Amino acid sequence: LIGVAAALGLAAHARTVLASSPDLLDQEVDAAANLIGQARPTAVNLPAAMTRMRTVWNETAGLPSADRVGALERSALALAREDEEACAAIGKNGADFLDVILAARTGPIGLLTHCNAGALATAGIGTALGVVRAMAARHEIAIFADETRPFWQGARLTAWELIEDGFPVTVIPDVAAASLLARGDIAAVIVGADRIAANGDTANKVGTYPLALACRRHAIPFLVAAPVTTLDPATPSGKEIPIEFREGSEVLLIETPGSVPIEIAPRGTKAIYPAFDVTPHDLIRAIVTERGVALPPFGPALARFSGAAWST
Amino acid sequence: LIGVAAALGLAAHARTVLASSPDLLDQEVDAAANLIGQARPTAVNLPAAMTRMRTVWNETAGLPSADRVGALERSALALAREDEEACAAIGKNGADFLDVILAARTGPIGLLTHCNAGALATAGIGTALGVVRAMAARHEIAIFADETRPFWQGARLTAWELIEDGFPVTVIPDVAAASLLARGDIAAVIVGADRIAANGDTANKVGTYPLALACRRHAIPFLVAAPVTTLDPATPSGKEIPIEFREGSEVLLIETPGSVPIEIAPRGTKAIYPAFDVTPHDLIRAIVTERGVALPPFGPALARFSGAAWST
Repeated sequence: LIGVAAALGLAAHARTVLASSPDLLDQEVDAAANLIGQARPTAVNLPAAMTRMRTVWNETAGLPSADRVGALERSALALAREDEEACAAIGKNGADFLDVILAARTGPIGLLTHCNAGALATAGIGTALGVVRAMAARHEIAIFADETRPFWQGARLTAWELIEDGFPVTVIPDVAAASLLARGDIAAVIVGADRIAANGDTANKVGTYPLALACRRHAIPFLVAAPVTTLDPATPSGKEIPIEFREGSEVLLIETPGSVPIEIAPRGTKAIYPAFDVTPHDLIRAIVTERGVALPPFGPALARFSGAAWST
Repeated sequence: LIGVAAALGLAAHARTVLASSPDLLDQEVDAAANLIGQARPTAVNLPAAMTRMRTVWNETAGLPSADRVGALERSALALAREDEEACAAIGKNGADFLDVILAARTGPIGLLTHCNAGALATAGIGTALGVVRAMAARHEIAIFADETRPFWQGARLTAWELIEDGFPVTVIPDVAAASLLARGDIAAVIVGADRIAANGDTANKVGTYPLALACRRHAIPFLVAAPVTTLDPATPSGKEIPIEFREGSEVLLIETPGSVPIEIAPRGTKAIYPAFDVTPHDLIRAIVTERGVALPPFGPALARFSGAAWST
């Protein structure tokens, strides 16, 4: 969604500039693409979407301005539609894969996810939640959602989205996931991704990595679900993925829209956190994309899937 | 502290009953010891302190009631004093051990702890924080504290206690610990314990186990610090430690004294959590007690240390 929103935002800005100061179009599209593309460092879909939009802009250089802006809009909308289609295919591919590896399992299938990789984070039914939804259509499942500190994407977004769509969900503190895995309550863990390096190392919301470590300990399959636009063949491994560190106040000040903020630590306490972490590829059982399921060693399949991922 | 508070509470109750209805003393001491001893299932210090107090009560059976109540009070105060002394010894033993295993390290020593095992959780300077304080007296250290969801013991208690005593501390979300371990910011992790089984398996605040898993991955020493009263030779392994599951509202409703509660999930969302988890002994580098440091395999040393731990 970050790429789709960025592309739509750039197109909307171009439309505004076309109406108000058409002479500045080239300059404004360039400045806005720069600004938006650098807004956050970790998710590859953001700069990649800007690259795609720039390509459209450059390739239409000889045409009338209105046509060029129209081309930007069509490209952004196409990106949204492709993401929607990708989610549906990811859901099917992931469920097909889980059906194979969980075939021997009886009773309700416990599935745990972290953060929100659902309809609120994509243009479609979600990536990780796309797989969860596809599984729900085939089996009796029990959905668990990590609360996802410090922004509660699991409690605020994933729980909301699933309840709205009629799926019962149980929220757990992030710290409790390892216990539930140890108890055998969870058959598989499925998360989304912000960037997947060429070797399969995956950057995702902080807390994903310790979850993958707990899965490894208990031999629970840990799956990453993402569209091929999240693959970054130019980044060899997780070591090269830039990780955004964010303000301590986001940790220590609890607030929701309309609430009186609650301080959870004495005034003046220092805090820090990385918004994302990197899960090394050796902890990942499979990377589910709309073009297929990549298995270890991930490199060759990811290279194949990512071919022309960002073509216009 | 849970054992000390329980013992002092029982003695205070006996003193009250002695003044108001001395005939009910035996019955009331028995009922209160039962009630207090079963208040929470996981920490062994609670029932063990009650067993010690019952022993005092039974052994003074022939004496005047006032003498018996006095004996209860002396025993409870002795327990508090012993815990205070134990903390000081744990601090020294832990720092001595870390000095050996971290001898090759240069620069400030990063130490991370989970929950609160400090002056607010013991009758002395703390167990895990006792070690941290002893290290601070010897070296330049950097203290990190897990916020400790869902009750924020790290942010509310550990940060407060350390800042009050002039130790700078950085709070991190629990989910960020693995990232900091991966970055090399942490030289050792030290936690307290609620119960240590005969084989070294350790029950402690939920979130301890995933932290130990992350330490294993990065070959960072993971230490447990606890007085010998926390050893439970009657429980063979972690599998037999009862784990308290608590209300989902404690996860989804954020509140501090005087605050307007904040709901972090849609009304009606289900949540659940275990208040504690069990860290298997194979993930623990050392168990630091006031009687010495137990190393793997823990069984023999723990059996030696726990001899007569709860004698009166």
